[in-house]
Amino acid sequence: MSLIYAFDHAHPRAPKDLKALLGGKGANLAEMTSVLGLPVPPGFTITTEACRVYLREGWPAGLDHELDEAVAGLERRMGRRLGDPEDPLLVSVRSGAQFSMPGMMDTVLNLGLNDRSVEGLARQTHDERFAYDSYRRFMAMYARIVLGLDPEPFERGLQDAKVRHGVENDGELPADELRALVASYRELIVELWATFPQDPRAQLRGAVEAVFRSWNGERARAYREREGIPDDLGTAVNVQAMVFGNRDDRSGTGVGFTRDPATGDQGIYGDFLVNAQGEDVVAGIRITEPLSALEAQFPEAFRELLDVFARLERHYRDMCDVEFTIEQGKLWLLQTRVGKRTGRAALRMAVQMTQDPAIALTKEEAVARITPEHLDQVLHPQFATSDVAVLARGLGASPGAAVGRVYLDAERAVAAAGRGEEVILVRKETSPEDVRGMLAAQGILTTRGGLVSHAAVVARGWGKPAVVGASTIEIDERGFRVGDTVVHEGDWISIDGATGVVVLGQVPLTASEPPGEFDTVLGWADEIALGRVSVRANADTALDAQRARRFGARGIGLCRTEHMFLEPDRLPIVRRMILATSPEEEEEALAALFAAQRDDFRGILEAMSGFPVTVRLLDPPLHEFLPDLVSLERGDAAGTLSDEEHRLLLAARQWHEQNPMLGVRGVRLGVLKPGLYTMQVRALLAAAHDVADAGGEPIVEVMIPLTVSRAELWHALQWVREALEQSTARVEVRVGTMIETPRAALVADELAEVAEFFSFGTNDLTQMTFGFSRDDVEGTLMPTYLANGLLESNPFKTVDGKAVVTLVRLATEAGRRIRPGLKVGVCGEHGGDPASIRHFVGAGVDYVSASPFRVPIARLAVAHALLRAKDVSETA
Amino acid sequence: MSLIYAFDHAHPRAPKDLKALLGGKGANLAEMTSVLGLPVPPGFTITTEACRVYLREGWPAGLDHELDEAVAGLERRMGRRLGDPEDPLLVSVRSGAQFSMPGMMDTVLNLGLNDRSVEGLARQTHDERFAYDSYRRFMAMYARIVLGLDPEPFERGLQDAKVRHGVENDGELPADELRALVASYRELIVELWATFPQDPRAQLRGAVEAVFRSWNGERARAYREREGIPDDLGTAVNVQAMVFGNRDDRSGTGVGFTRDPATGDQGIYGDFLVNAQGEDVVAGIRITEPLSALEAQFPEAFRELLDVFARLERHYRDMCDVEFTIEQGKLWLLQTRVGKRTGRAALRMAVQMTQDPAIALTKEEAVARITPEHLDQVLHPQFATSDVAVLARGLGASPGAAVGRVYLDAERAVAAAGRGEEVILVRKETSPEDVRGMLAAQGILTTRGGLVSHAAVVARGWGKPAVVGASTIEIDERGFRVGDTVVHEGDWISIDGATGVVVLGQVPLTASEPPGEFDTVLGWADEIALGRVSVRANADTALDAQRARRFGARGIGLCRTEHMFLEPDRLPIVRRMILATSPEEEEEALAALFAAQRDDFRGILEAMSGFPVTVRLLDPPLHEFLPDLVSLERGDAAGTLSDEEHRLLLAARQWHEQNPMLGVRGVRLGVLKPGLYTMQVRALLAAAHDVADAGGEPIVEVMIPLTVSRAELWHALQWVREALEQSTARVEVRVGTMIETPRAALVADELAEVAEFFSFGTNDLTQMTFGFSRDDVEGTLMPTYLANGLLESNPFKTVDGKAVVTLVRLATEAGRRIRPGLKVGVCGEHGGDPASIRHFVGAGVDYVSASPFRVPIARLAVAHALLRAKDVSETA
Repeated sequence: MSLIYAFDHAHPRAPKDLKALLGGKGANLAEMTSVLGLPVPPGFTITTEACRVYLREGWPAGLDHELDEAVAGLERRMGRRLGDPEDPLLVSVRSGAQFSMPGMMDTVLNLGLNDRSVEGLARQTHDERFAYDSYRRFMAMYARIVLGLDPEPFERGLQDAKVRHGVENDGELPADELRALVASYRELIVELWATFPQDPRAQLRGAVEAVFRSWNGERARAYREREGIPDDLGTAVNVQAMVFGNRDDRSGTGVGFTRDPATGDQGIYGDFLVNAQGEDVVAGIRITEPLSALEAQFPEAFRELLDVFARLERHYRDMCDVEFTIEQGKLWLLQTRVGKRTGRAALRMAVQMTQDPAIALTKEEAVARITPEHLDQVLHPQFATSDVAVLARGLGASPGAAVGRVYLDAERAVAAAGRGEEVILVRKETSPEDVRGMLAAQGILTTRGGLVSHAAVVARGWGKPAVVGASTIEIDERGFRVGDTVVHEGDWISIDGATGVVVLGQVPLTASEPPGEFDTVLGWADEIALGRVSVRANADTALDAQRARRFGARGIGLCRTEHMFLEPDRLPIVRRMILATSPEEEEEALAALFAAQRDDFRGILEAMSGFPVTVRLLDPPLHEFLPDLVSLERGDAAGTLSDEEHRLLLAARQWHEQNPMLGVRGVRLGVLKPGLYTMQVRALLAAAHDVADAGGEPIVEVMIPLTVSRAELWHALQWVREALEQSTARVEVRVGTMIETPRAALVADELAEVAEFFSFGTNDLTQMTFGFSRDDVEGTLMPTYLANGLLESNPFKTVDGKAVVTLVRLATEAGRRIRPGLKVGVCGEHGGDPASIRHFVGAGVDYVSASPFRVPIARLAVAHALLRAKDVSETA
Repeated sequence: MSLIYAFDHAHPRAPKDLKALLGGKGANLAEMTSVLGLPVPPGFTITTEACRVYLREGWPAGLDHELDEAVAGLERRMGRRLGDPEDPLLVSVRSGAQFSMPGMMDTVLNLGLNDRSVEGLARQTHDERFAYDSYRRFMAMYARIVLGLDPEPFERGLQDAKVRHGVENDGELPADELRALVASYRELIVELWATFPQDPRAQLRGAVEAVFRSWNGERARAYREREGIPDDLGTAVNVQAMVFGNRDDRSGTGVGFTRDPATGDQGIYGDFLVNAQGEDVVAGIRITEPLSALEAQFPEAFRELLDVFARLERHYRDMCDVEFTIEQGKLWLLQTRVGKRTGRAALRMAVQMTQDPAIALTKEEAVARITPEHLDQVLHPQFATSDVAVLARGLGASPGAAVGRVYLDAERAVAAAGRGEEVILVRKETSPEDVRGMLAAQGILTTRGGLVSHAAVVARGWGKPAVVGASTIEIDERGFRVGDTVVHEGDWISIDGATGVVVLGQVPLTASEPPGEFDTVLGWADEIALGRVSVRANADTALDAQRARRFGARGIGLCRTEHMFLEPDRLPIVRRMILATSPEEEEEALAALFAAQRDDFRGILEAMSGFPVTVRLLDPPLHEFLPDLVSLERGDAAGTLSDEEHRLLLAARQWHEQNPMLGVRGVRLGVLKPGLYTMQVRALLAAAHDVADAGGEPIVEVMIPLTVSRAELWHALQWVREALEQSTARVEVRVGTMIETPRAALVADELAEVAEFFSFGTNDLTQMTFGFSRDDVEGTLMPTYLANGLLESNPFKTVDGKAVVTLVRLATEAGRRIRPGLKVGVCGEHGGDPASIRHFVGAGVDYVSASPFRVPIARLAVAHALLRAKDVSETA
C-alpha cells in the first residue's frame, strides 16, 4: 500500500469515504478534485498509516522515496520547483485526522522559501513586500511548530516593527522593514536553536514530522479524551501548492457555510478578509467582512463560490463548510467538510433537507443526523459564549447551564430563593435532607460523588443542571476556595451541567426553547422504533409522570416507592413502623402508609393512563429511613439524646449493616417484613381501582427488586396474589422482577418461569459485577482508573459492554427461551445514555427507561441504535 | 407401572439397586428373598411412587385393587387369611424410604387382629396370653400411629395392670388381665376417637396411609433437613407376614452387625432379647443379651445366623446390619442393610476389605466408602454420647467438640487459660482483637455471624471447634441466657462444632487419634487424584504452612498478607504508614514493614519448599487497620480522645466507606498506594532469595486480588516486574490473579492474556454474584431463607452450583482458550467443602485450597469427585 496519494489519484471508492486513510481534510480535497472537478490547488496526502508507523517505529521506510516522487509530480504539475531561486514552488503542510479536531494540530504555510528563493518570489511577483511578508510568516511558523521555539519573541519583533512605523496592519509594513524582520528572525533562530534550514526538502520533512508529532500533543490528547476519539488513529498530512490570499488587494481568504450553522437558515454565511492568509482569519486580529460583501469586490469569484456551495450541498447532501482563497481574482478551494451546527440548526436543516428535492433526505437519515448533544442544546439553556475562564471542572451530571449565587446550605438556599434570588446550591454531597434546597436552586454543584450520586440522580430527574465531583473545590463554613480563588456565599457562579465546567461570575445563557422541528424529528425517531423498542420514564411522582408523558414516554419503567417514604410527612410514620414493639403498632403505621401510598399511586396511574406503570416494591435497607448512626452515637456519647432519639439509636444499631448495598434490602426486606410489601401491593391495587372507576386505564406492573432465586420470586408473587384475591380492581396486573444481581442474570431461565417481565437494574448490576460501590469508588478511584486507562470508560455512565451487557444478553435470551415474548426492559441511569442504549438495543430489550428529561434523548438514541443495525450512518 | 411388588418379584435388575422405588428396607428384603434365598417372612412393598401420588393427590387410583391382590397372594402363600376368626394372618406395616431415616417414621405390628380373630389366634397357638398380648400391642400402636391419639393413657393402663399384679415385665401379665386391658383400650378409643376398626382391610388401609403421612411428620422433616435428604422422595411401605419373637421362650428378637461398627473389629456384634418383639429391643426397657449368648440358647439358629452374616458380607461386599426374629427356634430375617459405622471403623474396615479375598475391595472402592464425616470423627474429639440436652443450636463452623468454662472477653479468656482453665470464648462476634482469646480457648461460640464470619474462618484455620450464629443466646455483661436458662461467666458448657449444638455442663469427649488406616486411605485418594487435581492449603504463617504440609497439602493456595499486618507489633507501623503526612514518613513505615514481611514469607517458603506458594497482595480496605470509627466518634463527642486518637479518627473518616466490600481494596488499593504493593513483592522476592540461598526450593506465585480488567492486571504486573528486575533471586515466579468479581470471570479471556494462573476467590464471588454481604445476611436473613426454601443451601457453605460454578466454568474455559494449560485453582472457604469440591472438579480446576485442618477432607473429596465421574459409587 502506498503511503502517499495525490488529490487526483483514482481511488476505487469515493475519496470522501476514505477518511480513515486520508483523514477528513485529505479525503474531501480528493473528493473535490477528482469527483467534483472544483478548483483545488494541487497536492497530495500522506496517509494516517504513515503517521501510525512513524509514532510506533519512527520515520517510515520508503516514505522519503514516495515523498520525493510526490513532490516531483507536484513540481511538474505546477511548472515550478520547490526552493527554485528563480520561481519557487511554495507549499502548505497541514494535518488532517479522521475525526475533525479543529485547531488541535499544526499547520505550516509558505514552505519552500529560503534566503535565495524569497528573492525569486519577489522577482516573479514583482512584489518584494509580499515575498518577505510570506517569508517572515513561514519563518515564525516553522520556528514555533517544527523547531518548538517560544513564539513570543517573534511576535514581539513584528509588533515592534509596526510600532516603529506607526502602522496597525501587518500588510502596511514596507518591504525593507520586512526584510529586516526576516534578518532578525534568522538571528533569533540561531540564538534559540541553530541555523534555519535552507534546504526545502529538509524543511518539508521537518514539517511532516512536526504534524505527525502533534497528534500526541497535549491539546490533541486532551481533546480526544473529551470527545472519545481513539488515541491510535494518527493523522494524515496534506501537502498542497500554496495560493496566496495575501498576494494583493485582488486577493483574499475566507470561510463559509452553505447555510447558517447557528439557526439553520438557508443562504450563505461566512467571513472574508482581503489581502490575507487563512491564519489571519482564524487569529481574529483583523475585522472580517461578511461573505455577501464579496459580491461587489469579486463578482466573478462570488458567483463561482455560490455555484460551488450549491454543488457541495447537493453532493454531500448536507450543510458544508468551506475554506477558500482568492488569488488575484481566481477562486481556490482549500478545504470542505460537513459543517458543525447548533442543535437548533441541526433540527431545522434536517427537516428542511427532507423537503428539498435536490437533497431528498429520508426521515431516517434526518434522524440519524441529530445527536444527543443537539437535543440537549435545545432542551436546556447553554452558555451563550465559549469564552469563559474555567474555575473548576467536575462531572457533567445533568445537562444545561445555570447561573446563581452560591449557597452552601439547603435551608439558606430555600430562604434566598424565597427572596427572589437565583441560587446555586453548593454541597460536598447531597442527601435526601437537601432535596428542598435542590428544588429551590437553579443548579447544583457538589465536590464529591459521581454520576449516580444522589445529587446527580435527583438533578437529572428534574432536568436541573448539575455538576458533581468537582474535587478541586474545598468548601468551608463561609464559602469555598479553588486554589487561591475564594468564593463567598452570595457570590455569583455559573455552571455547565453538560461539560462539568464551573465559572466565576454570571455567564450569559441562551434560551431553551425547542424549535418546532424538535417534535417532527422525534416523531420520526418514534416511527423507526415503533413496535420494536419503546422508551419509558423513571418517575416517582404524578408530576414526574405528567412531565415524562409530555416528553414522549410510553409508560413508567421504574417507579421507586422509597422516595414517597422520605417525604417529610411520611418519614415519622415509617419510623413508627420500624420502632414498633407490637404487631398492633406496626399495623397502625402500615395503615397510615397505605393511605398515603394509595394517593401517590393514584396520581401516577392517572398521569400514565393507557401506558404501563412499573412499580418497584420498597428497595433500600431500613436504616435509610433512620437518622445517621454516627450522629446518634455521638449524641449518645455526649449525653444529648432525647428518649425518642435513643430509641432511634437502638433501631439504627439493629439495622446497621457492614455493606448495605449487599444487605437486607429489596425482596429480602420483604421476606423479613412481609406486611410492608403486602401493604404496598394493596395500596397500588386500590389506586388502580380508583383510577379505573374514574374512567382511566391503569396498567400495573409490580416489580420485585433484588431477586436471586426462583423460590424467592415465587414467595414474593404470593404477596401480589393475596392482594389481588382481596381486590376487585378491573386492571391488568403483571408481576416481574428486576435483574440486578449477577445471579439473577445467570438463573434467568428459572426466574422466567415466574416473572412476566424482566427489568435490568444496571446500576446495581454494574456495582456487583465490578465489585464497585458507586458511593465509594467514584470519588478518587474512578478518576485514577480512567486517567491510567485501567478502565475504558466510567461503567456508571456508559454500561460495560463486555461483562454487564453480556449478562443482559444472556439473561434476555435465557428468559425468552422459557417464556417466549417475555418483556425485557432496562431501568436505571444507563437507560438515558445513548452509548448504553446502543448496547441494550443490541442485546434485544423491548424498552429502556430514562429520567423524564432524558426521554427525548433516549427516543433518539433508540432510533439511532436501530438505524445503526440497518447501517444508516449517523451524522458525519 | 405397578404400585406394589412382592418380595419375590422377578425384577430385571438386582432389587438392592432399586432403593429409589422400593425404599432401602423393601429393596433389601427383596434382595434377601429373591437373590440370596434367605428365610424372610413373605410380604410385599408398596412403592415410593404410590406415596408420592398419595401426598400429591390423595389415595392413588388402583392402589386398592393392587393391595387386594397382593394381600390375596400373601394369604395364599401363608395358607391363612387376614382377619380369619379361626386362624388369622397377621402382618406388620413398616415404612422404608430410599435413604435410611432411623426411627423417623412409623411402624404398625400385629395388624389383622380384631375382637374375633384374636380368639382364633389364641386357639391356634394354644396361648391366650400371647394372643391378647399381641392384640393389646396392636391396639396401642394403632391408636397412636393411625388414629393419632395420645399414647399416655394406653401406657398408663399397662403400668396400672402391672402394679395391680405386682409384676415387672409385660410378659408376666396373665391372659385375663390382658383381656381386661384390651377391653379398657377399646373404651379409651371410643372415648377419644370412635370405634376401633374391626375390618382388617380398613386397618391395613389406615396403617398404609399413616406411614405415607409420616413422611411429612415433623421429626422426619427435621431429620431430612439436617441430612440434606430431598423432601419429595416419599417412603415405601412394607407389608409382611408377622413372625413372633414374643411367641414363647423358644422365641426372641435381635439386631446384629457383621463386624463391630464402633471399632471395625471382625466378628459378630449385636443384641438379643428372648420372648420379645422388635419394639422391645428398640425401647430399651429390658436389658438385652449379647449375640454370642445365642449360641447356648439357640444353637441351630445361631449357626444359621453366622452363615447368613457371612453370606451377606460377601454379597454386599460390606459390613451389614441385620434385624432378625427367632420364632419357636426358627430364624427369620426382617431387615438388612449396609451398616452405619464410626470413622475409625470405616477406615479400618475399608482397608481390611481390600485384603479380604472374599470381598476384594479395590482401593478406589475403599476410598469411595469413607465420608468426610468419618475423617472429621477421627481428626477431632467428639461428644462421647449422643444423649445430651441441647441448650442452643448455631451453625457448626469448625468441626470437633470442646468443653470449657464460659468467658465473654478475650482478655479474661487468656487470663483464665493462663491459670490452667479450659475456656470456651463466647462473643457476639469476633474481630482481630479477639484473636489471642480465641487462641487460648478450647472452642469458640458466637451468637452472630455465619460460616465465613471472622470467628468461623479463624477457627477452621486452627482446627479449633466453633459454633457461630447461635442466635437464641443473649449475652449480657455477666453471662448469657437462653430463654429462662442463665449461664454465668465461669460456668461449664460443651459445644459440637460439627453439628452446632451447645450443651450446658461437661459432655465427655472421645479422643482424636487417627488410626493407621487414615494415611493408607488418604494415600489411595492421592493416587486417584495424582496429576489431575491437587490440594493446597490456605496458610498465613510458617506454623500453618508446616501443619498443612503434614496434613498432605501440596502447596499454599492462599497466603493472606493482611493477617501479618494485624500482628500486635505490626499494627502500629501500618497505622504510621496510613497516617504518614510526607513521602518520607510513608517510606520509613514501608521499610519497617518490608523487614517484617520478609521474615514472614521466609518461614512460609521454607515450610513449603518444593511446592508452590501463592501470596495474595494486600486485600482489605485500609480502615480495617484503624480503630473502629464509631468508637472514635463517640470518644470525640465525649471529648476523651488523645491527640493520636484524634489523628486516627480523621484517618478513619477519610478511609471510611459505605460498602467496604465493594470499595477501595485489593488491587484498587495498590493503584492508589503503589508503594505498599511493591514493598510486598520486594519482601517476597527477598525472602525467596534467602530460602534459595539456604538450599531450599522456593516456588513463588504472586496473586493480584479483585481484578476487573486486563489493563488493571497489566498495571499490577509492572510492580512485580520492577521488583524482579531489582532482584537477583534465582526463583520461579509466576503472576496470576484472583477471580472474585463477576466481571473478572466474564472477561477471563482478557485476563488470561496477562495472568499465568487464576485462583477463584469464591467467597467474594458468591457475595457479589448474589449481592449478599456475608456479614449482613448470615445472621437473620440466611436462616429465614433456608427455612422457607428460598435458597437450596447456604451458598457460603456449599458453592452455588447454578450461577457461581457457571462463572467458574466459563472463566476456566475462556482462560484456557487464550492460554492453554492455564493453572486454575480455588481458594476460599469452599475449597474445604466436599460438595463444593465436586462442583469445582467438574468445572475443571487444577487444585483446591483449604484451611490446613480441612486438607485431609479435601484430599478425600477430590478423589470422590474424580471417582464419581468414573461412577465408582460412594458409600451406600
